[in-house]
Amino acid sequence: MKLAELTWPEVDALDRSTVVVIATGSIEQHGAHLPLATDSLLVTSVMEAVEARLSEKILLTPTVWLGASGHHLAFAGSLSASFEGYEDSLIQIVENFHAHGFHKFYIVNGHGGNTEPNGIVCRKLKSRHPEIVIGHSGYFAFLTQATYDAILTGSIKGIRHACEAETSLMMHLHPHLVRLEKRRDDGLEVDPPVPGMVFFFDECTEAGSFGDATHASANKGKVLFDEAVEGLTQALSSLSHGISLQGR
Amino acid sequence: MKLAELTWPEVDALDRSTVVVIATGSIEQHGAHLPLATDSLLVTSVMEAVEARLSEKILLTPTVWLGASGHHLAFAGSLSASFEGYEDSLIQIVENFHAHGFHKFYIVNGHGGNTEPNGIVCRKLKSRHPEIVIGHSGYFAFLTQATYDAILTGSIKGIRHACEAETSLMMHLHPHLVRLEKRRDDGLEVDPPVPGMVFFFDECTEAGSFGDATHASANKGKVLFDEAVEGLTQALSSLSHGISLQGR
Amino acid sequence: MKLAELTWPEVDALDRSTVVVIATGSIEQHGAHLPLATDSLLVTSVMEAVEARLSEKILLTPTVWLGASGHHLAFAGSLSASFEGYEDSLIQIVENFHAHGFHKFYIVNGHGGNTEPNGIVCRKLKSRHPEIVIGHSGYFAFLTQATYDAILTGSIKGIRHACEAETSLMMHLHPHLVRLEKRRDDGLEVDPPVPGMVFFFDECTEAGSFGDATHASANKGKVLFDEAVEGLTQALSSLSHGISLQGR
Amino acid sequence: MKLAELTWPEVDALDRSTVVVIATGSIEQHGAHLPLATDSLLVTSVMEAVEARLSEKILLTPTVWLGASGHHLAFAGSLSASFEGYEDSLIQIVENFHAHGFHKFYIVNGHGGNTEPNGIVCRKLKSRHPEIVIGHSGYFAFLTQATYDAILTGSIKGIRHACEAETSLMMHLHPHLVRLEKRRDDGLEVDPPVPGMVFFFDECTEAGSFGDATHASANKGKVLFDEAVEGLTQALSSLSHGISLQGR
Amino acid sequence: MKLAELTWPEVDALDRSTVVVIATGSIEQHGAHLPLATDSLLVTSVMEAVEARLSEKILLTPTVWLGASGHHLAFAGSLSASFEGYEDSLIQIVENFHAHGFHKFYIVNGHGGNTEPNGIVCRKLKSRHPEIVIGHSGYFAFLTQATYDAILTGSIKGIRHACEAETSLMMHLHPHLVRLEKRRDDGLEVDPPVPGMVFFFDECTEAGSFGDATHASANKGKVLFDEAVEGLTQALSSLSHGISLQGR
Amino acid sequence: MKLAELTWPEVDALDRSTVVVIATGSIEQHGAHLPLATDSLLVTSVMEAVEARLSEKILLTPTVWLGASGHHLAFAGSLSASFEGYEDSLIQIVENFHAHGFHKFYIVNGHGGNTEPNGIVCRKLKSRHPEIVIGHSGYFAFLTQATYDAILTGSIKGIRHACEAETSLMMHLHPHLVRLEKRRDDGLEVDPPVPGMVFFFDECTEAGSFGDATHASANKGKVLFDEAVEGLTQALSSLSHGISLQGR
Repeated sequence: MKLAELTWPEVDALDRSTVVVIATGSIEQHGAHLPLATDSLLVTSVMEAVEARLSEKILLTPTVWLGASGHHLAFAGSLSASFEGYEDSLIQIVENFHAHGFHKFYIVNGHGGNTEPNGIVCRKLKSRHPEIVIGHSGYFAFLTQATYDAILTGSIKGIRHACEAETSLMMHLHPHLVRLEKRRDDGLEVDPPVPGMVFFFDECTEAGSFGDATHASANKGKVLFDEAVEGLTQALSSLSHGISLQGR
Repeated sequence: MKLAELTWPEVDALDRSTVVVIATGSIEQHGAHLPLATDSLLVTSVMEAVEARLSEKILLTPTVWLGASGHHLAFAGSLSASFEGYEDSLIQIVENFHAHGFHKFYIVNGHGGNTEPNGIVCRKLKSRHPEIVIGHSGYFAFLTQATYDAILTGSIKGIRHACEAETSLMMHLHPHLVRLEKRRDDGLEVDPPVPGMVFFFDECTEAGSFGDATHASANKGKVLFDEAVEGLTQALSSLSHGISLQGR
Repeated sequence: MKLAELTWPEVDALDRSTVVVIATGSIEQHGAHLPLATDSLLVTSVMEAVEARLSEKILLTPTVWLGASGHHLAFAGSLSASFEGYEDSLIQIVENFHAHGFHKFYIVNGHGGNTEPNGIVCRKLKSRHPEIVIGHSGYFAFLTQATYDAILTGSIKGIRHACEAETSLMMHLHPHLVRLEKRRDDGLEVDPPVPGMVFFFDECTEAGSFGDATHASANKGKVLFDEAVEGLTQALSSLSHGISLQGR
Repeated sequence: MKLAELTWPEVDALDRSTVVVIATGSIEQHGAHLPLATDSLLVTSVMEAVEARLSEKILLTPTVWLGASGHHLAFAGSLSASFEGYEDSLIQIVENFHAHGFHKFYIVNGHGGNTEPNGIVCRKLKSRHPEIVIGHSGYFAFLTQATYDAILTGSIKGIRHACEAETSLMMHLHPHLVRLEKRRDDGLEVDPPVPGMVFFFDECTEAGSFGDATHASANKGKVLFDEAVEGLTQALSSLSHGISLQGR
Repeated sequence: MKLAELTWPEVDALDRSTVVVIATGSIEQHGAHLPLATDSLLVTSVMEAVEARLSEKILLTPTVWLGASGHHLAFAGSLSASFEGYEDSLIQIVENFHAHGFHKFYIVNGHGGNTEPNGIVCRKLKSRHPEIVIGHSGYFAFLTQATYDAILTGSIKGIRHACEAETSLMMHLHPHLVRLEKRRDDGLEVDPPVPGMVFFFDECTEAGSFGDATHASANKGKVLFDEAVEGLTQALSSLSHGISLQGR
Repeated sequence: MKLAELTWPEVDALDRSTVVVIATGSIEQHGAHLPLATDSLLVTSVMEAVEARLSEKILLTPTVWLGASGHHLAFAGSLSASFEGYEDSLIQIVENFHAHGFHKFYIVNGHGGNTEPNGIVCRKLKSRHPEIVIGHSGYFAFLTQATYDAILTGSIKGIRHACEAETSLMMHLHPHLVRLEKRRDDGLEVDPPVPGMVFFFDECTEAGSFGDATHASANKGKVLFDEAVEGLTQALSSLSHGISLQGR
């Protein structure tokens, strides 16, 4: 179910083992060919498809569209929450639902920059409310290397930023928002010789994109989308039924 | 223009006197007949209509849908930001745009509970950046008493919460989300004998609504909607052209 | 009773339905004719008169004299709390009294800039302690338009800042602190064409005052003072006896 | 000069080497014989006497009456700021004056519990604004052991809390607020065998007072008062003229 | 060089391109056979060995031993910083060095729970000081799967918590602190069927350890240690010489 | 016992009346002759000696080496926590142990700049957990004036900063870290004519040291060390057995 469309008595009537799912995205530059809302749009599309399959088992909130995007702020139009404000938003949402009696939560992320704060949010909430079940993952965590290898034809076999994979997803899901003619192959290597260096996007890309966007296609996007939807559907279904730490 | 759909070079090409407009809503109970997202939906609809008229003059962000709704949390499904987190979100958005070179900002609100923090946000930002032009108002501030008196047939001649006016707006804009048969006339007096008392909704209404929702109609909603859109269009147009403190 | 003058066993002996009243003011510029403490002095005088009438029913704290006055800081001598610090002060006071067993609270304000944070303070406290009864209002909220219209002879029929009304109150209550010869008629219009714009005082007044201070008189001040005292006396008496949300 | 009574143009006309002096007190239990405001009343009286002697050299703010009194909260009517809020208030006041062009600051304290946060406030401000001259001290730091030994007849030769010295000061300055018949000799030893233990008042005194209040007299109070006023007058006069770290 | 042992003129004489290295550990349960300081001891030993090789190129701070260990707090003796406090400590250290003129920073981590906040620290610092070069990594990130596969004989081919690898490192570096007879093979599977679930250690292990500690040996520890030291030496040497985002 | 070396079951087996002792130091300039870690080294040495005598009665944490040293930051290599971060670290440590069932705490300080925040930490903790027993003191508080007078031959009969006393302690405990030839007699008077002025070290000493370091000797250091160890041993032993507010 979609929270936004329900009335309060309808929420009140729900089984409290329903999994509350929060999608997190961003408004940040995605090169010259993709719109600022790309991450928010993709994670929303994925989760709406999952919700359509699992509507009795999950309760989907609106997408948190203001992400942790400080590394993109050199590009016009990019927005970023503070880490504190971003974390607080998610914490409030979960704690509100906890007060309403829910105890299963999952954060589905569409923007790499949110991964660290999403993890910290889960840990803070677990410390305060040890009885809750909570986890987080990117929708892209459900895309497999096998699929990347099988379908991507550019040099990068994975998902980066405004790259072949992400552009393909947008061409499948929101084709009218893709400036096809603005796509370009940046051919950027993004791993520096020292692991864990923190670079901002304006330090390493002039256009704001990584990878070979000209290789993107709606068909490739459909394959990626379907895999993400399928993976998340299975994961959230498991979570709905109750997971255990088997063998422990 | 809608920020979400633009690319960063397109934002970068904008005239920096464009007015950045942020709509603020809520996810909170609206009685048994209106969905939780009512405030967010209404302010978004209003602002999209204004944007359609002023697309060269304003830059509209996505709606901040997590509002300051602590007074509704006793009703299932209601969410509330902390005041700190809510204020921080708006401050970050404005400061990001300020860093991108913009200097005119207007916050359009769809939820009464956001009015005080919206005011404080503007004052904090003005203290830090005295050169910016900033203001805030509810879309409902553009509805006139004359119109309320002329069209509302229930006992309350104004806009409250899930009332005749708000229900009418939803029937005009999002009819499929109104549970018509759940509407009821609460007939509640909401002014206590001492001014300024702070009551929470569960203290004064069982259903979560005020006023005479059965009097609502799509036609009334259209009148209210058009007046709000017209008023905001004029105000934002003025702001775009530059306002002065005339006569001072 | 005045808290400052009591001993702890005397407070301990009080009926816990006594209304704790906190007056809030400011230290901020009030033009060239009124002292920086004007708001604090006025609200203190009003509340001391109310306390004299209701001494068994209310417990009056010292006046919180450091208000939210960021919009006046361009004028020498003006002070402003941070919003966070200001709110925290009020919250601590209420929570201390709550720990002492009191549960009725009312904040009486003497400075318009405190209105928004006073409201937020009440809402935060109500969220944490739903059982308390709390409200806030300016002393000026008890002044009626009828009175303004009847006695004010300048162009502004209301209370602004260092204006005819405020100057009159000071001439009635603290005449030795009014620099009569420095009064001036600013004749400023303060409503911009767009509602809700946030201006700082140095943007719209050179002297720091609004309105026609030369029209002020001690007699007018007495009328305004008596009306505020009478209104607050009735309101706090009602609160002391217990208010209900009648008809709900 | 007293800030509260000045207008902004009068402050603006001041020599910026004027020393801004902030007095800090408390509202906290002082046994059954002294009022809750004792600390605030005493430091205010001392500073008003100093200001009368040095009116051209210092600018005295209103007394910060909400102190750090968590250790007294078990006694009804006692109030305490949070440490954060207390520090923030002082920091804002100093930073406001710094923005107005002043650069010499001195905090005069009337409540032992404020000593630590006053020190931290000075250090935080000095870190942010290395060019300012700032210090803090209790008015009681100007009372000498020689005087205590010469005039106090009870068992404690110093100033504690609601003790012979403090009661004497109140009998000299605010005799109508002293409940003479409620004074008692607590005869409490307050030093535990391990240095630095932090005890709260309800752990070690039933009445809230230390020492031999029945020995107090207005005459003793006058001696103590005069010594504090004289010491502070000299110190602030030195500060006004400029101090150096001689011999360094 | 080791910061702790230098005098300030010696630090002042350093080349400002020296890499400031901060090691981060924890005090948290490591099963019944390893001491609470295990993570801090290991990362310190690794970094001291690296410092011995690169003493002219890096400046090593004392180890930050209070980590983000909320997930271990159910076990006696475990300590955890708040995320805010932990991040603040690292931020202050880097900003202090930045004020001293240094601009290259690397955080070497010994505790998995610190990885997310270390990343956020780097991003916050980079946002405030875009000109700095900063990165972070676990010492364990320099251990290769090939090595794990070659030397580990238990069921887990990697490093977990108080496992074969970590116990081996302790047996090599701090043998007197290993309670050999308390080692046990927990045989725990730690991956739940849903990715990204956040579990606390008391939810999934009674003893606090994962893996097959009885397989541990000092020889295995030496191999792992040498690989980590070698990897970090190369990485920090590269960083000292200056890294670029080649090919971009 | 030393916390760092224990396993969690060993901590779990402890008597909960064991006194948890936290040592606090700094990394800050100590003139040209002493290392930056001087304060941390000294307090650690003192406490390790005390722990050796009282190992069954106290549980010693690692030394908190990042102190409140903002007043030294003008000298290269000096580090300082924020006050907030410093306080938070200590509060977390105590609250973690409180959750583990311990209730007696003592903070032993090696750096004067930590004294105020250590006091505030104790008061905050006592407010939150009134049942705990907590105190704080510098190791130097156990050094007596009689001893200073008897053994110090320089002009300052007490402990200052990188002075005769502190240098002597280092020569006794860590002779290899003392640059003997860099010692110098600064002959600085450190008390300004106005009490309580807050000066930073770069305002009053070029070298960073106070006093007559050339008078220092290992023998003097041994006397001071033994007195501190003896005093703390007695104090912590008393605390372990239970102190009362006798005679009250």
